[in-house]
Amino acid sequence: MLRSLLFAPATRPDLVAKLPRSRPDAVIIDLEDAVPAAHKVAARVEAVAGAAALVGLPNGPRVYVRVNAVDTPWFAEDVATALAPGVAGIVVPKVESVAGLQTVRDALLARGGPPLSIIAGFESGRGVLEVEPVLAGAAEGPVVEACYFGAEDYAADIGARRTVAGDEVLYARSRVALASAVHSVLALDQVVVAIGDDERFLADAERGRDLGYRGKTCIHPGQVPLANRVFSPSEEELSRSVRMLATWQSRTQDGHGALLFEGRMVDEPAIREARALLATAEAIREGGRGRDPAA
Amino acid sequence: MLRSLLFAPATRPDLVAKLPRSRPDAVIIDLEDAVPAAHKVAARVEAVAGAAALVGLPNGPRVYVRVNAVDTPWFAEDVATALAPGVAGIVVPKVESVAGLQTVRDALLARGGPPLSIIAGFESGRGVLEVEPVLAGAAEGPVVEACYFGAEDYAADIGARRTVAGDEVLYARSRVALASAVHSVLALDQVVVAIGDDERFLADAERGRDLGYRGKTCIHPGQVPLANRVFSPSEEELSRSVRMLATWQSRTQDGHGALLFEGRMVDEPAIREARALLATAEAIREGGRGRDPAA
Amino acid sequence: MLRSLLFAPATRPDLVAKLPRSRPDAVIIDLEDAVPAAHKVAARVEAVAGAAALVGLPNGPRVYVRVNAVDTPWFAEDVATALAPGVAGIVVPKVESVAGLQTVRDALLARGGPPLSIIAGFESGRGVLEVEPVLAGAAEGPVVEACYFGAEDYAADIGARRTVAGDEVLYARSRVALASAVHSVLALDQVVVAIGDDERFLADAERGRDLGYRGKTCIHPGQVPLANRVFSPSEEELSRSVRMLATWQSRTQDGHGALLFEGRMVDEPAIREARALLATAEAIREGGRGRDPAA
Repeated sequence: MLRSLLFAPATRPDLVAKLPRSRPDAVIIDLEDAVPAAHKVAARVEAVAGAAALVGLPNGPRVYVRVNAVDTPWFAEDVATALAPGVAGIVVPKVESVAGLQTVRDALLARGGPPLSIIAGFESGRGVLEVEPVLAGAAEGPVVEACYFGAEDYAADIGARRTVAGDEVLYARSRVALASAVHSVLALDQVVVAIGDDERFLADAERGRDLGYRGKTCIHPGQVPLANRVFSPSEEELSRSVRMLATWQSRTQDGHGALLFEGRMVDEPAIREARALLATAEAIREGGRGRDPAA
Repeated sequence: MLRSLLFAPATRPDLVAKLPRSRPDAVIIDLEDAVPAAHKVAARVEAVAGAAALVGLPNGPRVYVRVNAVDTPWFAEDVATALAPGVAGIVVPKVESVAGLQTVRDALLARGGPPLSIIAGFESGRGVLEVEPVLAGAAEGPVVEACYFGAEDYAADIGARRTVAGDEVLYARSRVALASAVHSVLALDQVVVAIGDDERFLADAERGRDLGYRGKTCIHPGQVPLANRVFSPSEEELSRSVRMLATWQSRTQDGHGALLFEGRMVDEPAIREARALLATAEAIREGGRGRDPAA
Repeated sequence: MLRSLLFAPATRPDLVAKLPRSRPDAVIIDLEDAVPAAHKVAARVEAVAGAAALVGLPNGPRVYVRVNAVDTPWFAEDVATALAPGVAGIVVPKVESVAGLQTVRDALLARGGPPLSIIAGFESGRGVLEVEPVLAGAAEGPVVEACYFGAEDYAADIGARRTVAGDEVLYARSRVALASAVHSVLALDQVVVAIGDDERFLADAERGRDLGYRGKTCIHPGQVPLANRVFSPSEEELSRSVRMLATWQSRTQDGHGALLFEGRMVDEPAIREARALLATAEAIREGGRGRDPAA
């Protein structure tokens, strides 16, 4: 369950400390794009301190640290020294090859300690071209539990230009979602850089969910409740699923394998979808994180 | 010529008997999604009886049987016992690998008798990821004459959510159409589950034809004439093609390899398209199945 | 800098002579689709004469010759005899395989003389399926400096139907742009056959630029200034980039790696984009070809 992952720069302890307030499913303390080169080394200590204060919170978010990319001079030390005990895993930006992912695994294994999971970022032309072979080995340890598509970096890398509708990244965004699903990796959707534009965020998130994404990377606390809402089943979806399953149960006993339900022909795939929605809602309830958290 | 393929469950002999009424180019007697597990075995006998009554009809549709997927316990017996003499071929759902397709070929060859063709369904994430190698061998016998893209199953499989516009499957739908064309396999478009919504069906079919699909899978008789209409050249297309070819003929004799025709620059590709349209119309006339069958 | 490439048939010396008037960045003297089979041989002499008159012009466009495809009977002689001294390179239509591209290289090397570059056309189903391996070797000599996506031929080849919105080629157009960027090949966008429809051309070009294309193939002089305009940074883009970089400079000194700029969260990728825009504008000024050439 990673509907919302909220970033803060490791170099901003004030923002890091406040990360859980908006109730994201996960937080990411960033050593990469949000930290200038001159602060990379100092940021590691801050990342450890910031994470240490967050991992013990009751009912708190999962805590990740985004390290610098494998081909940077900072990667090895980031993994070796910037991960506080209790963090759930590392976020690795700009994954581009099977070999690059292997470097990540080797660094994690060399570090020792309890196994950390990997969230891999696909946000370059080369990364998208290699997403299938990279994710094909996701289940090998340390496991790739999720990946994200980074539209801004991707567009800058291939010389594309971002638009509101986003057709310029539809190919890549679809391809990453497909490869993720086939290899049982949770797909996390692109950020929305238009801070405060809730309508745009919601539209972008809905489209992401349409494509198969399960959550969204967020760069402002105000985006978190929106992401939680879009990536949770709605009341309408849940009640429709309940009605559909009830109809299905009564009719399949009569030997029907497909049936007309509320104007739409329904068979196994729709039923599997309805069951998955209800399971997701159940998981959200168990996690104590509903659509409208009032705690 | 497979503009329309109408499904009916093998377990509904009443519907199977009526399949030809709406004048589909082909009918598919379904043993898969439309038949619950408890009825799978009994359905085979009904599939044979239903098909036997349809294969002899004068000017009737081609008759196919959709068997269960290769990795189900029913596949082998379906192929061995559920195909009446005279059926044109089998529809195989959820094809996902070259090895899976080989299993289908082996089962058909083991069965003996006149060669049956294969219509392969691509309707899972893995299937779409493997569509190019699977179709690369389409011409080997038994031949893969056509394939269909199954948007509902695909979306359920990768956790996508279906929308009216359908952008969430544009990547996969485009990819299957492309692989089909390159390997000379007829591409058949996704079903529309909104029964009775003609406008939606027509829009979906037009978009399918735009993408290179040649026909549509139908789950209700009312969809058949709509599919036949969209996947036949229109009167306007035909008369425009005739005018274009006449202009082309007169101008190329003067040494022009490109010309301005009705506001549009036209060269070889447009001419090939115009000729293909006229050939399709001719084939439809020969088959006795026009846009407005009044027989 | 190939914002606009204007075609003329080799068999129309009047049009060839006038090619530079609309100030395209490059001109292409065509031996392929625009020349009927009966004129292919005679066209070579005209291509040489036409190019010879253009290559010496001060501040003139780069001159290319489009030869016939590798698998035609004309290809070898086209390369051997139809290229005047001083042409920048050859445009090869319908590239479909690594082996086909190797044939082009062999023919260029056999010809001798100064090295010519290659512009490869991807405009068939097979070509699009092979675009990644073909472009992976682009840097080997003779180099593939650019490639174009040919939507009309592609659609005709796979049986797709062209629409104004162009969603039917979004998959292929995106895929070619991505492979080009990854392998450092300039991506050139599809032609617009609706001659005189400036609005449509502009919309199509803007979408091409969104996708990562750097220029457009043009089939009418009236399209050239439109292409030059769209594929140059606009005044608004430039002034916004200058403001963004100034803000960035002042803020990163304070240790910020990301900042809110005009309502949008900005970090490294956006900064790289802004710098690239300014560099492009500088290159255009140096080339003496601004958005509104008044010379």
